[in-house]
Amino acid sequence: MAADYSAYSDANVKMPALGTDYMIGAHPLVLKALADSNGLRTPGYGTDSFCEDAASAIRRACHCPEAEVRFFIGGTQTNAVVLSSLLAPYQGVVAVDSGHIAAHEAGAVERGGHKVLTLPGKEGKIDPAALKTFWASWEKDETREHMVMPGAVYLSQPTEIGTLYSLAELKAIHDICRSSGMALYVDGARLAYALACEENDITLADLAALCDAFYIGGTKCGALFGEALVLPRPGRIPRLFSIMKQSGAVLAKGRLLGIQFKALFTDNLYFRIGREALEKADRLRKGLQEAGYPLLSNSPTNQIMVPVSAPLYHRLIQEGYGGFWALKEDGSFEIRFVTDFSTREEEIEELLSLMNPRNA
Amino acid sequence: MAADYSAYSDANVKMPALGTDYMIGAHPLVLKALADSNGLRTPGYGTDSFCEDAASAIRRACHCPEAEVRFFIGGTQTNAVVLSSLLAPYQGVVAVDSGHIAAHEAGAVERGGHKVLTLPGKEGKIDPAALKTFWASWEKDETREHMVMPGAVYLSQPTEIGTLYSLAELKAIHDICRSSGMALYVDGARLAYALACEENDITLADLAALCDAFYIGGTKCGALFGEALVLPRPGRIPRLFSIMKQSGAVLAKGRLLGIQFKALFTDNLYFRIGREALEKADRLRKGLQEAGYPLLSNSPTNQIMVPVSAPLYHRLIQEGYGGFWALKEDGSFEIRFVTDFSTREEEIEELLSLMNPRNA
Amino acid sequence: MAADYSAYSDANVKMPALGTDYMIGAHPLVLKALADSNGLRTPGYGTDSFCEDAASAIRRACHCPEAEVRFFIGGTQTNAVVLSSLLAPYQGVVAVDSGHIAAHEAGAVERGGHKVLTLPGKEGKIDPAALKTFWASWEKDETREHMVMPGAVYLSQPTEIGTLYSLAELKAIHDICRSSGMALYVDGARLAYALACEENDITLADLAALCDAFYIGGTKCGALFGEALVLPRPGRIPRLFSIMKQSGAVLAKGRLLGIQFKALFTDNLYFRIGREALEKADRLRKGLQEAGYPLLSNSPTNQIMVPVSAPLYHRLIQEGYGGFWALKEDGSFEIRFVTDFSTREEEIEELLSLMNPRNA
Amino acid sequence: MAADYSAYSDANVKMPALGTDYMIGAHPLVLKALADSNGLRTPGYGTDSFCEDAASAIRRACHCPEAEVRFFIGGTQTNAVVLSSLLAPYQGVVAVDSGHIAAHEAGAVERGGHKVLTLPGKEGKIDPAALKTFWASWEKDETREHMVMPGAVYLSQPTEIGTLYSLAELKAIHDICRSSGMALYVDGARLAYALACEENDITLADLAALCDAFYIGGTKCGALFGEALVLPRPGRIPRLFSIMKQSGAVLAKGRLLGIQFKALFTDNLYFRIGREALEKADRLRKGLQEAGYPLLSNSPTNQIMVPVSAPLYHRLIQEGYGGFWALKEDGSFEIRFVTDFSTREEEIEELLSLMNPRNA
Repeated sequence: MAADYSAYSDANVKMPALGTDYMIGAHPLVLKALADSNGLRTPGYGTDSFCEDAASAIRRACHCPEAEVRFFIGGTQTNAVVLSSLLAPYQGVVAVDSGHIAAHEAGAVERGGHKVLTLPGKEGKIDPAALKTFWASWEKDETREHMVMPGAVYLSQPTEIGTLYSLAELKAIHDICRSSGMALYVDGARLAYALACEENDITLADLAALCDAFYIGGTKCGALFGEALVLPRPGRIPRLFSIMKQSGAVLAKGRLLGIQFKALFTDNLYFRIGREALEKADRLRKGLQEAGYPLLSNSPTNQIMVPVSAPLYHRLIQEGYGGFWALKEDGSFEIRFVTDFSTREEEIEELLSLMNPRNA
Repeated sequence: MAADYSAYSDANVKMPALGTDYMIGAHPLVLKALADSNGLRTPGYGTDSFCEDAASAIRRACHCPEAEVRFFIGGTQTNAVVLSSLLAPYQGVVAVDSGHIAAHEAGAVERGGHKVLTLPGKEGKIDPAALKTFWASWEKDETREHMVMPGAVYLSQPTEIGTLYSLAELKAIHDICRSSGMALYVDGARLAYALACEENDITLADLAALCDAFYIGGTKCGALFGEALVLPRPGRIPRLFSIMKQSGAVLAKGRLLGIQFKALFTDNLYFRIGREALEKADRLRKGLQEAGYPLLSNSPTNQIMVPVSAPLYHRLIQEGYGGFWALKEDGSFEIRFVTDFSTREEEIEELLSLMNPRNA
Repeated sequence: MAADYSAYSDANVKMPALGTDYMIGAHPLVLKALADSNGLRTPGYGTDSFCEDAASAIRRACHCPEAEVRFFIGGTQTNAVVLSSLLAPYQGVVAVDSGHIAAHEAGAVERGGHKVLTLPGKEGKIDPAALKTFWASWEKDETREHMVMPGAVYLSQPTEIGTLYSLAELKAIHDICRSSGMALYVDGARLAYALACEENDITLADLAALCDAFYIGGTKCGALFGEALVLPRPGRIPRLFSIMKQSGAVLAKGRLLGIQFKALFTDNLYFRIGREALEKADRLRKGLQEAGYPLLSNSPTNQIMVPVSAPLYHRLIQEGYGGFWALKEDGSFEIRFVTDFSTREEEIEELLSLMNPRNA
Repeated sequence: MAADYSAYSDANVKMPALGTDYMIGAHPLVLKALADSNGLRTPGYGTDSFCEDAASAIRRACHCPEAEVRFFIGGTQTNAVVLSSLLAPYQGVVAVDSGHIAAHEAGAVERGGHKVLTLPGKEGKIDPAALKTFWASWEKDETREHMVMPGAVYLSQPTEIGTLYSLAELKAIHDICRSSGMALYVDGARLAYALACEENDITLADLAALCDAFYIGGTKCGALFGEALVLPRPGRIPRLFSIMKQSGAVLAKGRLLGIQFKALFTDNLYFRIGREALEKADRLRKGLQEAGYPLLSNSPTNQIMVPVSAPLYHRLIQEGYGGFWALKEDGSFEIRFVTDFSTREEEIEELLSLMNPRNA
């Protein structure tokens, strides 16, 4: 009954590749941690020692010894619970129009009663100047009591299109939030790919210093599932456990989240998982550029989007490479490639060969 | 890097026992299925073949080839999403006052906008006669348009206190629902312990024939997590995927649920897990009765509640046995013991020894 | 084009009577105030001087010069907005099971996301001892984080069945709220009939001293519509205007509420309206008791409930007297009579004659 | 005690003017109807004969004898209740970005759980071609199950900026709704000013033929308050009364709405009220254009917006003319003038004189 959880490295199995970073199971070390602890009995609902160990490790990594750490199951759930808790009923959350909460969470924030106030993105990011103007225009509007008050700012690091905020940009946004009273919340669904990126200058400690709340993504960064919410000021959301329970966001066997994040924050695994994916992405990006494909996003992280003709798109999808990004009015496509810890060299080479204009 | 997921059978490790059925990890065969598939890449959000296989197995087990099967992560989430989808805005759900949705889900149903209309329980169950009277009294009330309309009936099999509905009772409730237009929904968080119980006469096929919706519990029945919702009439809840997404109830690596339920519905594992726990419960129940403890619930399943003095309660908790059930006004306690597949004979014997009046 | 708004005193028009206190239009002085101001132009949304005058008059009547006063259109709306604002998402509101929010607001509180936690009523009132026990049992429950936390207490003065809280009772409830952190909210839909009642010992100043929020009912006490919410501590609900707007509770011509409440709080009119109704109620109560009818409620205010046979019930309703209160299992009825400023002596006499056992 | 409800025609009283169409009380005939009926007793909650008469008159005016007519108190309330009833939980409503629900209802639609999906306006209107593209882009998006589904279209006639849809445009939008399954809802807060406008070619009968729901505005068109919702297909929203009650949208003295709408639909009053305001608006528009002011909106109805310098803006506001529309980045303003039945010739002349460049 020995389990084989290393199949992903088996070059003999032909599998879809580069479609997204949640097609594979867990990183082997994360799975091992789950398996090793499987036979233990612990108290439920996250009151076990694995969760406490994981929280401690995260606090240390954030240089924020007093932070409150809570484990959620998925990103949409985390965003919905945190935002509805940070916002008063009359407030909405500011995001770029391409933000995950604005576009791809099926209206979860609105279901919770709040408007997503969208700004046009600049490389997928909130422009601090535009944010400042937006706040000021609300504040000066004589009918503002009839309008949704901006109560929080949501951003992702990396963004939906893989770009990165600089520390200077995050500080500028933080300053606007501080002076206006808006909360600052960062969605780190793919945070590993920011933290391990050479172009990145925002650390976990910076996030802890600048945000009211942020989460460290597990699902897309090597865990089976799970996101670690960090509230640098403990108690920022009173009785959060009850809110999570009410929202169906509590796992009975809560330790599963603790076990996974403990593994991810042991021996720098979270960073290494990010690093591996970025190296593969760099190789692929370079190959695509050499083959003449323009990059649709200035992303230095693990997501790469390029335009392709309809026939090439369908061929790549059929061969198991990449995933839908957008359908253009002229019938052509934008395709997205995403690397992760399990991406193999051979897969990149085969994809580049398929996309080589001489073969296409 | 070989994983040891059989630790629970290691008699040398002293662990808390009988506190509840979600203190242990997954059944070894469920964990093995997760480990074996870990390295595969599959499409996300439950569109993989594991989920399809699991759904097929469940349809077969329910003798309901057209049923729609959806996988959720936990019970509170399932209840909240399903009930808010079955109910119109002006409707509430009828439940016994001890029902999980009425007492221990932190108001999740109300958060979704609906009232829980409670009836006094009869051995933890809805009395069909009382339900009939309740409906009639709403229907005849001249102010009923100012009242919450009963729109669905919620019950658990087994109930919160481990008792079982008979098929006759379920049919009687079904008939009232049919004639009144109320939906019938069954929470099967611990369904394995009903299905495998000799006193039970309700099969999965009966549930499929009588309910608008029910779920087969995984979390408390051998899975790491997960519940399988069955809608015998497909499309009973239109666009359920989007509702789940909006509710934060979709797992990116959705296959994790399919893999686990496929394992549970292979070679009768779900039933065997129930059977094992029931045998342990029978042994414990018999021992407690022999020792003179009155049973607080007429439960033939894996939950057993008995009254204990405060000193004994604290000693048992300290030794790692059982869990809080209730604090009485006189300062004494009610303690609950719950068996599962991992309960060991020695644990039961030691507990009975601790509770033996001659030792206590 | 002269309007005749005094028709109600026209004894020649046979009208239904005593059914409830919202069957008639406004008190003539209230209507006159609306008519006199009709041709003025004022700013909208309650920012006019009538609203300010009315608020000032109410502050004076409450001996609470700093109170925040807000005008709502109806009671259900007021209750829903105020309670959802006083409660955190994980909290519910405690009420007697016969409370208006528990029974006859079609689930408005639950629609706002909160559970109504019901206690059995004692003469329609919350028993302070029962409230204390309820709070303590929540506080001591080891699973309380999985339960709805009691966050506010709702009561009506007079109650749904016309009874009155004593000042001692209100103080006892206030003390429990203070020590537990629950908010105290009083629904005064029929407050005029408490304030003008000889048995009453709770003044507006007491309400202001003891409550977090209460409202002075207009709709059932001589206005066309409208309720005046008093928040003794201003800012108790931040940005209440925006919350009201979001809830559809703001009147564009907000002055209509100010005009009416200014009239009601000029020359003691609110009290006089209550007084008139109570005198009529006393006369009717005495007559019913003399005729041998048992009173179903110990109400000293403007509501009187008595049991009647089915034939008598239908005859009275046909003749336009009283209204449905309850249908008993044996087929007999409970009928309710409600007096108001417009009740005429002749109507009471005719009703008593119809109910005289010798005639019935 | 004779009331003087004709003060608005008293030229001796200097009042603010042209700020908006809800600064005055009711049209004298509406007020008279309220006064004349004041002394009658009728059943509550809109079950009286005035409401039935008003509904009948509206059905006739709409050439839709089977329509269901419901009376609401205000526009935000109507929009919120109707939209949350027409939409499934996973759906949102499409509106122009300047739409009232998108901008000035403090997030009422989102509070009800639904996203407002905004399109850029074309003269304040939804462009049918843009709507078609929007729907198609949702339908073709492979991730649409993760997105909010467009479930209804909201538009105003006249629009927020006073422009009018043509019948051809409305039919085009209707056709898209029909083929896609979206509901069509028209907000007629100022409908009188469309119906009475020479440029308008959409009748009440057209609205009844093309919409799932629309409302005939009272508050801004001569009533004290009130909006009449028309559902051409009765039962389109099941149990609407209970939904309204739950939403705090039911008036106890519901007849107040019936009385007012009966008056408005007697002898063509609603149309005449619109006509009077339009004539005043035409006069003002002509004068402003002669004085060289560019019109900011192509509005043929009772709203006129023009740009003014900051000093002129402040002077006009101080003199009681017009209202805030927008503050430009350069510090100048946009001012809005709105006429209604009470606007006097002298007021227009004085305003034009104040704005005459030679005087300014």
